[in-house]
Amino acid sequence: MTVFSGFSKLNRGQRINYIVQNSLLNGSEASGLNDYLAPNENRQQVFSEMIENYIGNFPLPMGVVTNMVINDETFIVPFVTEESSVIAAASKAAKFWAERGGFKATVQGMAKKGQVHFTWNGKPQFIKEIFPVISEKLLNATDVLTQKMRQRGGGITAIHLIDKTEELTDYYQIDVSFETADAMGANFINTCLEKISSVLQNINELNSGGYNVEIIMAILSNYTPDCVVRCWVECPLEKLIGWNKKLSYNSFATKFKQSVDIANMDISRAVTHNKGIFNGIDAVLLATGNDWRATSASAHAYASRDRKYKGLTTVRLTEKTFTYELELPLAIGTVGGITGIHPVVKNSLAVLKYPDARKLMMIVAASGLACNFAAIASLITTGIQEGHMKMHLSNILNKLNANLLESERANSYFTDKTVSYTGVVEFIQKIREKK
Amino acid sequence: MTVFSGFSKLNRGQRINYIVQNSLLNGSEASGLNDYLAPNENRQQVFSEMIENYIGNFPLPMGVVTNMVINDETFIVPFVTEESSVIAAASKAAKFWAERGGFKATVQGMAKKGQVHFTWNGKPQFIKEIFPVISEKLLNATDVLTQKMRQRGGGITAIHLIDKTEELTDYYQIDVSFETADAMGANFINTCLEKISSVLQNINELNSGGYNVEIIMAILSNYTPDCVVRCWVECPLEKLIGWNKKLSYNSFATKFKQSVDIANMDISRAVTHNKGIFNGIDAVLLATGNDWRATSASAHAYASRDRKYKGLTTVRLTEKTFTYELELPLAIGTVGGITGIHPVVKNSLAVLKYPDARKLMMIVAASGLACNFAAIASLITTGIQEGHMKMHLSNILNKLNANLLESERANSYFTDKTVSYTGVVEFIQKIREKK
Repeated sequence: MTVFSGFSKLNRGQRINYIVQNSLLNGSEASGLNDYLAPNENRQQVFSEMIENYIGNFPLPMGVVTNMVINDETFIVPFVTEESSVIAAASKAAKFWAERGGFKATVQGMAKKGQVHFTWNGKPQFIKEIFPVISEKLLNATDVLTQKMRQRGGGITAIHLIDKTEELTDYYQIDVSFETADAMGANFINTCLEKISSVLQNINELNSGGYNVEIIMAILSNYTPDCVVRCWVECPLEKLIGWNKKLSYNSFATKFKQSVDIANMDISRAVTHNKGIFNGIDAVLLATGNDWRATSASAHAYASRDRKYKGLTTVRLTEKTFTYELELPLAIGTVGGITGIHPVVKNSLAVLKYPDARKLMMIVAASGLACNFAAIASLITTGIQEGHMKMHLSNILNKLNANLLESERANSYFTDKTVSYTGVVEFIQKIREKK
Repeated sequence: MTVFSGFSKLNRGQRINYIVQNSLLNGSEASGLNDYLAPNENRQQVFSEMIENYIGNFPLPMGVVTNMVINDETFIVPFVTEESSVIAAASKAAKFWAERGGFKATVQGMAKKGQVHFTWNGKPQFIKEIFPVISEKLLNATDVLTQKMRQRGGGITAIHLIDKTEELTDYYQIDVSFETADAMGANFINTCLEKISSVLQNINELNSGGYNVEIIMAILSNYTPDCVVRCWVECPLEKLIGWNKKLSYNSFATKFKQSVDIANMDISRAVTHNKGIFNGIDAVLLATGNDWRATSASAHAYASRDRKYKGLTTVRLTEKTFTYELELPLAIGTVGGITGIHPVVKNSLAVLKYPDARKLMMIVAASGLACNFAAIASLITTGIQEGHMKMHLSNILNKLNANLLESERANSYFTDKTVSYTGVVEFIQKIREKK
């Protein structure tokens, strides 16, 4: 294989030239990569230097969900998503629940943790006995690093030694708990952990007389079962009427419960159920500059914590009341990372009235619950294709540059038919040929 | 609460006005929402109508990973991500493996499935006996819908009745398997399933004499354990030298295996391990217009299939050879959805030389494995903060509009220090005051 070196040292134009020469992207297509650059040079520099081997901006459409009432406060929530129907569905649910008391939410905790993984070849009893002394040295070494975070109310809150020698030879963890205020805190946590591991490697008592500490790695954990938000909606059963006239409120409640119960017993349904929650969650995380890979990994692992992958929501039906709740871990921030750097993220935070991390956790959870509620409510009444297909048709008509008259005729023709790309192309071609 | 109706009927300008009046976004910030619109009106219309309540485009930086060799073919892979270091890490791993035979990959299957969930109040034995007859009727009803997909080599490949009455009263599933060629196929599958459920509701034998079918819901499953890709790298042990001079190849291999073993025994590490894989996977899925919520949900659930959430990779060490493998479900497409609509997605597919769905599965998997390999290789040698902090510093300097001289001095000053936002601000302020 010919390996090319030095790509990262090329400027943007040279990189694009290299791509044009070595792929099927042609020159005129490549010029389209200039289409979404920021007009302001300083602002554009932010994107050019946010990642490596930068070639252009990739636009995703941003929309908003209005009428999102959470703990009696009304929000307009920015969603960034490529999927049609998500915002329509969340908006319908937000409005439905705004008229029934809104979403309620509480944050159960905001603790994050990190781990230093290492091996040590002495007797477990010895390291356990001296760990209180060692841990003070480790913490002292982080003092300078945690100073600013402590001023903001965060810092290291606990440090534990975990004996894992029964699972892997000589293997231990140092488990460190953190509070990171309004930051997600990844850099802060990793910097502290790498400091701790460099000190641990030189602790005399563990590194003399034939013994030594071998660091495997030191890194935050994205699993955050102590950084959890709960969000729920509740109303008298008879107020469930109004979503769809096809079902009585009792049938609606019963079928709703069946569908949530199914997500808790069947992995094939659970995955789809939870994916619908993440349609809302990831849309708000993107808009607010948060790392959706980390939160997804954490929440999906949380969904499997009972040794079985299940839905993240639960429904409670009494004779009088319908309650629907989402609980998930969500380690996110409103400062740090790209939140202060990305210009549109700054706009999103302004639209959300500059929430702190705690409030953003509740907004994100409510957005996920809204999407999921709407999805289930549609599935048990009309099915989801009705709404989807309307959007799908509109996208295809756009692509075909259909004019107003053509669009109207297509909309009316496809009312009782399945929308497929080839079907719409044929229909429009026929109209155009007849002209 | 005051609930606002009709937001979706406003035009874009009116929507933004409403937001300015009802949030902390001010007018001049709001004008920034025009910054990333497409200059071409038809092209902009694609974004404006891709989702509901559209207010503007949200740009994410796009970069590329070069030297990605998969099954002896070299690719340039577009990554869309907000996270610094991801592309640098993947590029380093791609080049490292290009010089050692590249990535190998195979697709284990591409089957997707959907479910019709329903209750029926008769005897299980009866419905099971007549299901062969019923299923023919159900399939016949989908004939028109599957015709075009069958021409492309796809369609419905199996239909089964599953008795779930022991888990929930009267509850059954019809489990339908699909092949969807180069499409992800969600709309196709859902359309077929809704047709099947509407016919099922009217099957005479099940809906007479006091018996009736009650459809709970009909929808595709995003859990795709039969749509799986495997991707691996392999080389003689001694060729592992070259990543980092700190470790001998034997120590590198041993520590690498320890770190992967840890991800398979400890959920706190497994989540972070897998999140690193998704840094690469989601970046390519975004660039190619695929739905990352669906694939994440599926793959993370797959990671918990042994009743314990584990890492998605495995390492094999023999006396001579290092083999590292990723296996995950990945239901994605290169046609349908927004792939033919989003202008930059079209560019991405051109850069990838227009892969079919099968090849894209392998490219995506290799990108995930590259990110994960680089992350672990860094963690067990230098730690990850060294690289991260360099990018972090560069981002902060950008934000402060640091000039070349200021940046050079900051880079040199922070070589042996921890980069924090406030630290950099103070440093730059000091320089500026001295002028």
